[in-house]
Amino acid sequence: MIDQTAVYPPEFTESIKDLIELLGDRLQIRQTAPSVFVLADENTARQCYPSILEHWTLPGSLVLIEVAAGEGSKDWTKSAAVLKVLSEKAANRSSILLALGGGVITDLGGFLASVYMRGIRFALIPTSLLAMVDASIGGKSGLDVGGAKNLAGLFCRPEAIGVWPGFLKTLPESELRQGMAEMLKHALVASKDHWHSLSGSQESVLREFRNSSLKAMGWIRESARIKFEIVQADPLEKGLRSVLNFGHTVGHAVESALLESGSPIGHGQAVLFGMRVELVLAEALLGFEDRAQVDAVLLDWSVWFERASTDIERMVHWMRFDKKRSQGTLRFALPKKIGEAVFGVECSEDEVRKALKKLW
Amino acid sequence: MIDQTAVYPPEFTESIKDLIELLGDRLQIRQTAPSVFVLADENTARQCYPSILEHWTLPGSLVLIEVAAGEGSKDWTKSAAVLKVLSEKAANRSSILLALGGGVITDLGGFLASVYMRGIRFALIPTSLLAMVDASIGGKSGLDVGGAKNLAGLFCRPEAIGVWPGFLKTLPESELRQGMAEMLKHALVASKDHWHSLSGSQESVLREFRNSSLKAMGWIRESARIKFEIVQADPLEKGLRSVLNFGHTVGHAVESALLESGSPIGHGQAVLFGMRVELVLAEALLGFEDRAQVDAVLLDWSVWFERASTDIERMVHWMRFDKKRSQGTLRFALPKKIGEAVFGVECSEDEVRKALKKLW
Repeated sequence: MIDQTAVYPPEFTESIKDLIELLGDRLQIRQTAPSVFVLADENTARQCYPSILEHWTLPGSLVLIEVAAGEGSKDWTKSAAVLKVLSEKAANRSSILLALGGGVITDLGGFLASVYMRGIRFALIPTSLLAMVDASIGGKSGLDVGGAKNLAGLFCRPEAIGVWPGFLKTLPESELRQGMAEMLKHALVASKDHWHSLSGSQESVLREFRNSSLKAMGWIRESARIKFEIVQADPLEKGLRSVLNFGHTVGHAVESALLESGSPIGHGQAVLFGMRVELVLAEALLGFEDRAQVDAVLLDWSVWFERASTDIERMVHWMRFDKKRSQGTLRFALPKKIGEAVFGVECSEDEVRKALKKLW
Repeated sequence: MIDQTAVYPPEFTESIKDLIELLGDRLQIRQTAPSVFVLADENTARQCYPSILEHWTLPGSLVLIEVAAGEGSKDWTKSAAVLKVLSEKAANRSSILLALGGGVITDLGGFLASVYMRGIRFALIPTSLLAMVDASIGGKSGLDVGGAKNLAGLFCRPEAIGVWPGFLKTLPESELRQGMAEMLKHALVASKDHWHSLSGSQESVLREFRNSSLKAMGWIRESARIKFEIVQADPLEKGLRSVLNFGHTVGHAVESALLESGSPIGHGQAVLFGMRVELVLAEALLGFEDRAQVDAVLLDWSVWFERASTDIERMVHWMRFDKKRSQGTLRFALPKKIGEAVFGVECSEDEVRKALKKLW
């Protein structure tokens, strides 16, 4: 029997050597000497894979599979190329896939490993802040179909999630911003203390990350813990887990609308915008009191993006197809105060339009 | 918790009305009035869907999604179109998919339902003999990637498998031949009695099917029972289930080789050829004694196909990538006598080449 709903916790390691030891143990690589395929994008292939290769002392050969950086690689049609490479390089049912990268790579790798020959074992090695605190945790994987984000997906189970925060040093500041979006979300829906830690000046927060300070490491672990505890309590998103959708109903819509218009923005940036819009709803519907203060922090982490290429109606269109929509009603997860959220809040399209207009 | 490995038994019904009642019960359609999507190919859309529609007395609207007939519709890239239609017609997590057709449709429908929005509920309504006795049973689904058969797939669980043998009347004789291939396989690996029932003159067997005689219905149920009992004992194909691969290692290879050459043959025909070749191996390696007699029956059900468009080396190439290959060795499931098979029999490529040459 396979329990597809068991959620695997992220495990933090102190060095690449420890990370590889962890993978060896969890995937029983010493015992089985499988062929090991490493899925990376052009960035992690250049900046992270060489360290893995250098410290690889386990049996089993490593084969690198490289895809283009960015959301485009999560496209259903494009992803077939990875399956073909696995086949050409004779990956079999005993082979292992390591997904080395940010959220796009962990989503793509988790999905493809789960379907290749009806499923091979895999592990996630998140290298971006966003993947470390969010995307790699919770057993969800997904592909985009014709621009619709995660329209195809699976609940699937990695054998391990190995985190080595040292990989963060390879990240540009824009990527730290993307990860901060989800960390701020975790704080807003689940922990007032975490919010107070993270809502200091942007410069000071970035400095801690750049120095890989103990403080920054603590923030990352705390965000990962919040995500893990919520998904462990509700692995199949029957209820509680949907608080993590805060910012995402609007966020996915803006992300899809800009993707189809040819001016894509990152997921984290879309979520920052989504949270700002949804806080307008939280204020109107739930009496959320700290919108001005919270909005200032979210805006601080946001980057300007060109709005002209799409419009509000196109976003409403995408929201209609958002998978969280249930039976004709738009439902939102919203904080009622900092650190406490509710889910299943019904909103009409007009209420959403009004909130969007306020910030578009 | 989801037990992905529970295997659903086929349920035989006496009329379309009973079939629809069964679906209503198993999918709780009366209670939830979901939107119901029916996946069909151009043949079953014309010949089977109207009867379903006519007798549909359940709540919930029916939406037909039609794809081209034939293996081509199981292609990974093409299948995205079905996901897009589901999305455009606002299928949500409460929606249901009914896969109405032969093995291509049950494979395609099972896979896509399992990944659309991370999984919606689905049922299979096999309309071909092959799907009734084989493809719809056992929780496997699969898509072809770049010509490689079932390179992507899932173990997934329909809520129901509703069989109404009346649909067989819509089938051309060539389709009955495809189904007979798997029925003969079931007999050869698991039941001498079943073999003796099925190995009568082809004309008399076809007559029983054409008349939907009680005898023919008994054969279908017996083949479905054999398949179900084997997969129930070993849902994840850790061992025993692989006896069902008899004829399929060579069969998939010839199917893939002819598909890429532009002269595709049906799965059943490929399996008939595969069994004939693999019986040469069974005779050589396991002392199988009745090859001449069995080969005559298999040949009787076979249809001539053009061999010139591919060759033995191309088939060996595809066998190398066959997913049943484990760690560099070709392994076969072979009968040692009629009604009794073993699995995991190692063969060298040269032994396989020799057997292929005998019949190519």
